[in-house]
Amino acid sequence: MNKITILIHCKDRSNIIASVTNFIAKEGGNIVYVDQHVDREQNIFFMRLESEFTKDSFSTDDFKESFKNTLVNGFDMKWRIYSSEVKPKMALFISKYDHCLYDLLGRYNSGELNLEIPFIVSNHLDLKPIADNFKIPFHHIPVTKDTKNDAENKQLELLEAHRIDFIVLARYMQIVSGKLISKYPNKIINIHHSFLPAFVGAKPYHSAYKRGVKIIGATSHYVTEELDAGPIIEQDVAHVSHTHSIQDLIAKGRDLEKIVLSNAVKLHANRKVMVYNNKTVIFS
Amino acid sequence: MNKITILIHCKDRSNIIASVTNFIAKEGGNIVYVDQHVDREQNIFFMRLESEFTKDSFSTDDFKESFKNTLVNGFDMKWRIYSSEVKPKMALFISKYDHCLYDLLGRYNSGELNLEIPFIVSNHLDLKPIADNFKIPFHHIPVTKDTKNDAENKQLELLEAHRIDFIVLARYMQIVSGKLISKYPNKIINIHHSFLPAFVGAKPYHSAYKRGVKIIGATSHYVTEELDAGPIIEQDVAHVSHTHSIQDLIAKGRDLEKIVLSNAVKLHANRKVMVYNNKTVIFS
Amino acid sequence: MNKITILIHCKDRSNIIASVTNFIAKEGGNIVYVDQHVDREQNIFFMRLESEFTKDSFSTDDFKESFKNTLVNGFDMKWRIYSSEVKPKMALFISKYDHCLYDLLGRYNSGELNLEIPFIVSNHLDLKPIADNFKIPFHHIPVTKDTKNDAENKQLELLEAHRIDFIVLARYMQIVSGKLISKYPNKIINIHHSFLPAFVGAKPYHSAYKRGVKIIGATSHYVTEELDAGPIIEQDVAHVSHTHSIQDLIAKGRDLEKIVLSNAVKLHANRKVMVYNNKTVIFS
Amino acid sequence: MNKITILIHCKDRSNIIASVTNFIAKEGGNIVYVDQHVDREQNIFFMRLESEFTKDSFSTDDFKESFKNTLVNGFDMKWRIYSSEVKPKMALFISKYDHCLYDLLGRYNSGELNLEIPFIVSNHLDLKPIADNFKIPFHHIPVTKDTKNDAENKQLELLEAHRIDFIVLARYMQIVSGKLISKYPNKIINIHHSFLPAFVGAKPYHSAYKRGVKIIGATSHYVTEELDAGPIIEQDVAHVSHTHSIQDLIAKGRDLEKIVLSNAVKLHANRKVMVYNNKTVIFS
Repeated sequence: MNKITILIHCKDRSNIIASVTNFIAKEGGNIVYVDQHVDREQNIFFMRLESEFTKDSFSTDDFKESFKNTLVNGFDMKWRIYSSEVKPKMALFISKYDHCLYDLLGRYNSGELNLEIPFIVSNHLDLKPIADNFKIPFHHIPVTKDTKNDAENKQLELLEAHRIDFIVLARYMQIVSGKLISKYPNKIINIHHSFLPAFVGAKPYHSAYKRGVKIIGATSHYVTEELDAGPIIEQDVAHVSHTHSIQDLIAKGRDLEKIVLSNAVKLHANRKVMVYNNKTVIFS
Repeated sequence: MNKITILIHCKDRSNIIASVTNFIAKEGGNIVYVDQHVDREQNIFFMRLESEFTKDSFSTDDFKESFKNTLVNGFDMKWRIYSSEVKPKMALFISKYDHCLYDLLGRYNSGELNLEIPFIVSNHLDLKPIADNFKIPFHHIPVTKDTKNDAENKQLELLEAHRIDFIVLARYMQIVSGKLISKYPNKIINIHHSFLPAFVGAKPYHSAYKRGVKIIGATSHYVTEELDAGPIIEQDVAHVSHTHSIQDLIAKGRDLEKIVLSNAVKLHANRKVMVYNNKTVIFS
Repeated sequence: MNKITILIHCKDRSNIIASVTNFIAKEGGNIVYVDQHVDREQNIFFMRLESEFTKDSFSTDDFKESFKNTLVNGFDMKWRIYSSEVKPKMALFISKYDHCLYDLLGRYNSGELNLEIPFIVSNHLDLKPIADNFKIPFHHIPVTKDTKNDAENKQLELLEAHRIDFIVLARYMQIVSGKLISKYPNKIINIHHSFLPAFVGAKPYHSAYKRGVKIIGATSHYVTEELDAGPIIEQDVAHVSHTHSIQDLIAKGRDLEKIVLSNAVKLHANRKVMVYNNKTVIFS
Repeated sequence: MNKITILIHCKDRSNIIASVTNFIAKEGGNIVYVDQHVDREQNIFFMRLESEFTKDSFSTDDFKESFKNTLVNGFDMKWRIYSSEVKPKMALFISKYDHCLYDLLGRYNSGELNLEIPFIVSNHLDLKPIADNFKIPFHHIPVTKDTKNDAENKQLELLEAHRIDFIVLARYMQIVSGKLISKYPNKIINIHHSFLPAFVGAKPYHSAYKRGVKIIGATSHYVTEELDAGPIIEQDVAHVSHTHSIQDLIAKGRDLEKIVLSNAVKLHANRKVMVYNNKTVIFS
């Protein structure tokens, strides 16, 4: 049994759904999931399908070729097709905060995440023991003003050597350069510790405390060149009051960051996110 | 332009999605919405589609006939097809509490609800002035132990005379008999003031206070013969603490009841709810 | 039985709590509620007490005088003392949106709000029928660029003539001038339809849609000269997704606005809010 | 600087607050926190105070003695006084599920929990490596029908030898006997994976799935003889839909269980919980 996931977006017009489902039926597939969305402002059509193929001779590559020839050109589609047999490879970039790391590795260990983690990169050695405990290769790549470029080249080498599909900045605390971003467009997931677009940049809990908000939040988004302005994948919030000090906000925020980041990672790894126009369509 | 909504459920098997979408394409329809669900435990397939037809000669009745002959028998489908031109007719049953009534009529007035309210029934006269303000016919049908049967017959007469599609018990405070339920299966929506299945029956806020829960809730469900045990459409909750008296719980609960009931009404009126096995599938 | 509420804030130092509670005991009061807070960053102490006095000869004015002489100077306190017999007077400023108006008047009618509403002011006539239904005097004061100053003078006349304690802008849609703000400092409550500080200013739901946020919010705050930057009283949020159009966000937002504004009004009317440093302490 | 926390409850009557605060002032203490609650139904008064003492000669034991002689008898108080220098000792009882264990130990490691964990007990060996990683002594005490009594005696020996203050059942999966409960009344914290009182007993996620609820929850409560019926400390919920399988509910529930249990542990360890009448007063 082969199973594939298809993601499509294109200009909206008549008969896309019927054409795609009909094509899959002709190829011998049984559609087990379909969801679609139309952005009426932009007139863009989005679709996500999962289809099963029982015939032994099925080949994902052949299907892709046929899909391209039959459908893609006619509808001028952007498309991606994934085999369920291939787990995406995720690189973890960390710094000194351990809460998102513990949370992701705990879920990874328990089989909750449908992905592989070939390695962890950090600019500090502090969290190496955790990587060791979970038996994940740890690469220490220090970053200073002067070595930033070299460091990034080393990171890129590692990413390419392991054929990494996407990168997760689990409170990495470093600004990633345009070079890395352009090589992994909409494939670098960050966790920002505020409900964006409020409190962009450094020390958002301090700003939230100063402003006297009654709700704090966390936001997971794809990294783009503009700081904390990329497409939002997931957000969550928690109520706070005047009784909470900045330290309390930071502690409460840790729980938000963990859940928001791991949810975003799951959505991405399960190919449920489509990006356009600096926004996301989430087929959950 | 004609627009129809199709709801289907049947035993799961191959090619349902392709068959249905293909049929609609052949009938000249453009599918603008499709969502589907498979209950893997029960092996049941559910689908909701919206399709637009631009040809002048389109007739919903003809389409239904063709749909039935082409698809229904082969897949042994349960199905419903609605024209978007026909708004469902909702009867409101109320008693003495006004909060859900104000909320629903306010939304009705502002055009938020896609339905008609031909009349309101109450066993008391207290809320007649509100019905009058909103210019909705009000029928006073008192209910006592002795007159319960007669009262229900009068209700049934009204419901049939106005070809009511579904009934909303907006804190009606009377137990509806099996006769009414059997005539409107999965078409009577109740709001219960607890997060079911906790605190079934009378005075749930008193029970919640006594148990010392830290969360209260409200549940909107279809009425079945078993009290407060019908298929759940919508639930929501609010945090409470030891500082809240029973009166505070009741006041907080009112806000929950309003929102939960109006959401359930909107889901039902927009044909987004399917019922099976005493549960709901909500295509929202 | 007389009951008073005391609000105090001053520089933090030893023995404030004991001094105040001791003073009340000596005056024959029984403290039935006490809560306090210390802002450790600013070193400010806040306290809220409720005390009952059973002796017939009790006079709130005498108590205030005695309180002032005995405590206020020594601790350099800012203080307010309210008799529970006096309900605060609230003026409602509205424009064309009716949802917050319906919500507040529904709660007012049902006895949920501990306040009086002597009149409603609007720059449009659209909502006069609602005020009439609820039998609240309605004053139509149109506002144009040229008449803005005159309009505000008329508003001030009304506010003073009715000895209004605080003003609620229930989606008033006009920027209030510094003259009005300075006469009612921390006594003008606004509802802003975003989770501040995100999306300050006009059309926040449009901005939220454009940014692709997964959570929308509403914020009730005191009005200060800087737009949407006053002390926050209450906030709440709702989850949204790519399926929600701007119109959907506006509809969902209405429910948030109603609840957030009415909660803020209740907190203020029950003398549970203290303001300092552009933030609030909420003794709820 | 010495700091103590005082918890009091007694029949409500006049002058309790003033008497207590006055007493503390006379003993040379500066009250830095006070909160109180009156259960009007039961006529019971509750208070929590924190007070600092700067004089070198301060002794918590002397203060307790003086407190008892001066106040306790007159008001017939139940009372507890804790020195902030003494961290409570918590024993962790676990079985095979690791998520609550990882969560608690992660927080313990990061200094978020104000307590000590002298040892972990489990009826299985599966999670020993985690205890080892965090360098916490692990005691394997198997439990079978026949050995249950012996096992409990071993547990009691350990608890007494380490002068354990409270026990946390972090998904321990065994019913604790009346003997243990009576030795640690309101000192055994359990996490139940439903929003109690819904779905008492085994397999609540299966029951929630079957009932078709739209919200699942988790509840942390003190263990009493009646199963899942003890005083509730903390609850939280998450929205679910028809798309969630039982496995999805279990996964979503794990995140709830972790947060709810760790919050309950923090409230208990910080002496913020008072129990009466099978309910809790939480001074948070």
